[in-house]
Amino acid sequence: MENSRFTVGLEQLSKIDGEAGHNVIESLQDICPDLAKFTIEYPFGDIYSRPALDLKSREIATIAALTALGHCKPQLKVHLNAALNVGCTEDEIKEVLLQMTVYAGFPAALNGMFAFKEVLQESKAIQPSNDLDT
Amino acid sequence: MENSRFTVGLEQLSKIDGEAGHNVIESLQDICPDLAKFTIEYPFGDIYSRPALDLKSREIATIAALTALGHCKPQLKVHLNAALNVGCTEDEIKEVLLQMTVYAGFPAALNGMFAFKEVLQESKAIQPSNDLDT
Amino acid sequence: MENSRFTVGLEQLSKIDGEAGHNVIESLQDICPDLAKFTIEYPFGDIYSRPALDLKSREIATIAALTALGHCKPQLKVHLNAALNVGCTEDEIKEVLLQMTVYAGFPAALNGMFAFKEVLQESKAIQPSNDLDT
Amino acid sequence: MENSRFTVGLEQLSKIDGEAGHNVIESLQDICPDLAKFTIEYPFGDIYSRPALDLKSREIATIAALTALGHCKPQLKVHLNAALNVGCTEDEIKEVLLQMTVYAGFPAALNGMFAFKEVLQESKAIQPSNDLDT
Amino acid sequence: MENSRFTVGLEQLSKIDGEAGHNVIESLQDICPDLAKFTIEYPFGDIYSRPALDLKSREIATIAALTALGHCKPQLKVHLNAALNVGCTEDEIKEVLLQMTVYAGFPAALNGMFAFKEVLQESKAIQPSNDLDT
Amino acid sequence: MENSRFTVGLEQLSKIDGEAGHNVIESLQDICPDLAKFTIEYPFGDIYSRPALDLKSREIATIAALTALGHCKPQLKVHLNAALNVGCTEDEIKEVLLQMTVYAGFPAALNGMFAFKEVLQESKAIQPSNDLDT
Repeated sequence: MENSRFTVGLEQLSKIDGEAGHNVIESLQDICPDLAKFTIEYPFGDIYSRPALDLKSREIATIAALTALGHCKPQLKVHLNAALNVGCTEDEIKEVLLQMTVYAGFPAALNGMFAFKEVLQESKAIQPSNDLDT
Repeated sequence: MENSRFTVGLEQLSKIDGEAGHNVIESLQDICPDLAKFTIEYPFGDIYSRPALDLKSREIATIAALTALGHCKPQLKVHLNAALNVGCTEDEIKEVLLQMTVYAGFPAALNGMFAFKEVLQESKAIQPSNDLDT
Repeated sequence: MENSRFTVGLEQLSKIDGEAGHNVIESLQDICPDLAKFTIEYPFGDIYSRPALDLKSREIATIAALTALGHCKPQLKVHLNAALNVGCTEDEIKEVLLQMTVYAGFPAALNGMFAFKEVLQESKAIQPSNDLDT
Repeated sequence: MENSRFTVGLEQLSKIDGEAGHNVIESLQDICPDLAKFTIEYPFGDIYSRPALDLKSREIATIAALTALGHCKPQLKVHLNAALNVGCTEDEIKEVLLQMTVYAGFPAALNGMFAFKEVLQESKAIQPSNDLDT
Repeated sequence: MENSRFTVGLEQLSKIDGEAGHNVIESLQDICPDLAKFTIEYPFGDIYSRPALDLKSREIATIAALTALGHCKPQLKVHLNAALNVGCTEDEIKEVLLQMTVYAGFPAALNGMFAFKEVLQESKAIQPSNDLDT
Repeated sequence: MENSRFTVGLEQLSKIDGEAGHNVIESLQDICPDLAKFTIEYPFGDIYSRPALDLKSREIATIAALTALGHCKPQLKVHLNAALNVGCTEDEIKEVLLQMTVYAGFPAALNGMFAFKEVLQESKAIQPSNDLDT
C-alpha cells in the first residue's frame, strides 16, 4: 500500500537525515507537497529501506555521487550529516571526498570538502550552546 | 620518493583493478606514457593506498560517482570489476546502481546497470572457457 | 496499493514508449528485476500518469533534459520515439533539439539531432518491410 | 541583416523574459556588450522567433534542460518567470520540475522547485506593494 | 547581412575543421539543414572569426571544454583534428588533455587521450595510403 | 622526492594563483591538510610545472573547462585571476568565455562572464586603496 511506503520512508528519513531531512520536507509543503510525498516514498520508502546494502555504504555512495555531480550543495550537506548519523567517521567521509579528486577533479572535491567544513562548523556551533544548558 | 609512489600505485592497481587496470595503462604507452605514470602514482599510489577507508567502501564511492557522471563507461566497467575483486557482492553493487536513480536519475542508473550486465557477461564468458581446462 | 502503481505504470509505458519501453524492461529482468519494477512504478505509475501536464509537453521536457545531459543516448532515442507516439510532429521535435544549442551548447544539440536521425531511419527501415506484408 | 536579427531578438526577449531579461542584458553592458548582442541575436532573434514551436513548449523545454543541468540557477529563475509570462500555469511548471526527479535525480528537481518557490515569492512580494498604491 | 555571416562562417569552418567539419554539415542536410546553417553562422561566422583570440588558443579552449564535458566525443575528435590544423603540436594537445585530470578527473582525461589516439591513428591510416600514390 | 614535488608545486601556485591560491590552501588546513598537500603536489607540482605548454595556454584551458563544467565558481574565479597573472589580457579572457556559448550553452557562458565581472570589480576595489598609500 502507498501508506506503508510513506510510513517506512518517513521512518528512514528520520533515522538517516534527522532534522535536516524534515526541514527539506517541510519547506516543500507550500510549493509542492506531492514532491515531499514522492521524496519520502521513493528514495526513503523504496530504496534506503532495502536490506541489501548497509546505511553506511549507502551514504558513502550518495556523498560520492553528489560531490561528483557538483551542483547539489544543499543535498550534499544533508547527506554529509546523514553519513555522520549512520556511523561514518569524520575521517572516512573526508577520505571519500578526497578520492573524488580522482573521478570528478580537484574543484569538485574541494567544494565537497568545504561543504563538510560548513557541516562540522554548524554542528559544533549548535553543540556548545547545548552545553551551556548543563 | 617518486619511485615508491609508482611502486605502491602499481601494486594497488594490480590488487584492485587486476588485468583491466593494466590494459588501461598499457594502452596509454604509445600515446602518453606520462598519463599512465600519473594514473598509477596519484589515484593508486597516493589515494587508494591510504588506510583511512577500506577498499570496498572506496569502490562503492567510485561506482556511485562514475554512474552519476554518466560519461565514463569504460572506467565504470573497470571499477565494477574492481568492486567484485575487493569483495563487494553482486547484490551490493546492484544496490549502489539502483540507488543512483535517486541522485542522478533513472537513465544514468539504467546505463550503470547495463554496464554491470556487460561486466558479468564478459566475466562469465571467460570463466566457462577456464572450466574446460579442468 | 503497490499493485495498482505497477498496473498504471505498465499501461503508461505501453502508451508512451511502446515496444522500445518494453525492451528496456525486458533487458533488466535477468540483471535487476527490481529496477524494472521501480522504473514502471515511479516514472510511469507515479509521474507520467498525473493529469496536470499533457503527454506532449512531458515528452518535450524529457527530450530537452536528456539532450542537455548528453550522456543518455539510449534513453533519448526511446523518448524521441515516444514524442512521436504521443503526437509531437517531427518538426516540433527538431525545434526542441535545435533550441538546446542555446542551453547545452552545439555539440549536445548536434548529438541529439543525430540520435533523432537514427530514430527516423530505424522507423523507416521497419515500416517499408511492413508495407511488403500488405 | 544583422540589424533585423537584433530587433527581432529584442522584441522576443521583451515578450518572453520581460524585465528580468533586460536586466541580464543590462548587466553585460560594462563587461562584454558583445555577449549581450549575441544573446539577443542568436537565442532570441534566431531561435525563439521561429514559428515551428509555440512559446509555451519552448519554455517547458528550457526549464527542463536548465533544471537537469543544475548549475544555472539565475537563468532558470528568468525562464521560470518567462514560462508564467507565456502562459504556463503554476501547476504545469511544477509538474515539469517534478518530472525531472526521473531524469536528473531528486536533488536537481528539488533545487528547481526551490528556485520556483523563490520566483513566486519575489513576484508576490512585488505585487502586494503595488496593490497598496491603489 | 545573414549572407556574409554564412560566407565568413563557411570559410572559417574550412580553415579550422577541414573535411571533418564539412562532413558534420553534410550529415545535417537531410535531417535539419537549419541546424547546419546555424552551426556555420553562429560558432564559425560570429565567434571563431573574431580577431581577439588566435585560433590556437581557441582550439585549446574548445578541447579543454569538450574533454571536461565528457559526452561529446565526435565533436572532440573534430576539434582535436582542428587543433592540429591551426598549429597546435601533438605534445601541446596531449598536455591540455593531461591537465584535464585536475579539473574533470582522470576518467574524462583518459577518454580525451584515447580520442586523440584514434584521431592520430585515423590520420596516419590515411596518410600512408596517400604515400602509396606517390 | 615528495618534498621536491611539494616545493615545486608551492612555487607554481604562488606564481600562478597568487594570494587566492594560498587562501584556498590555508582554508584546507583545519579540515583536511592532506587535500592541501595533494592540491599543491599533483596539479601544481606535477602538471603546471611541465614545460610542454606555456602558462597562458594552461589558464585558457582551465578557464574553458571550469566555465563549461559550470559548478566550480570559486575555482573559476581563482583561475580568472590566474589568467591575468600569467599574461592573458582581459579581452582574451572574455573571448574564451564568449566562445563557451558554443560548447556549453549561453547560461554557462553568462555565469562565467559574471564571475569575471566580480573578479575585475574585486581587483579594482583593492587597487584604489593601494593608490591611497602613494
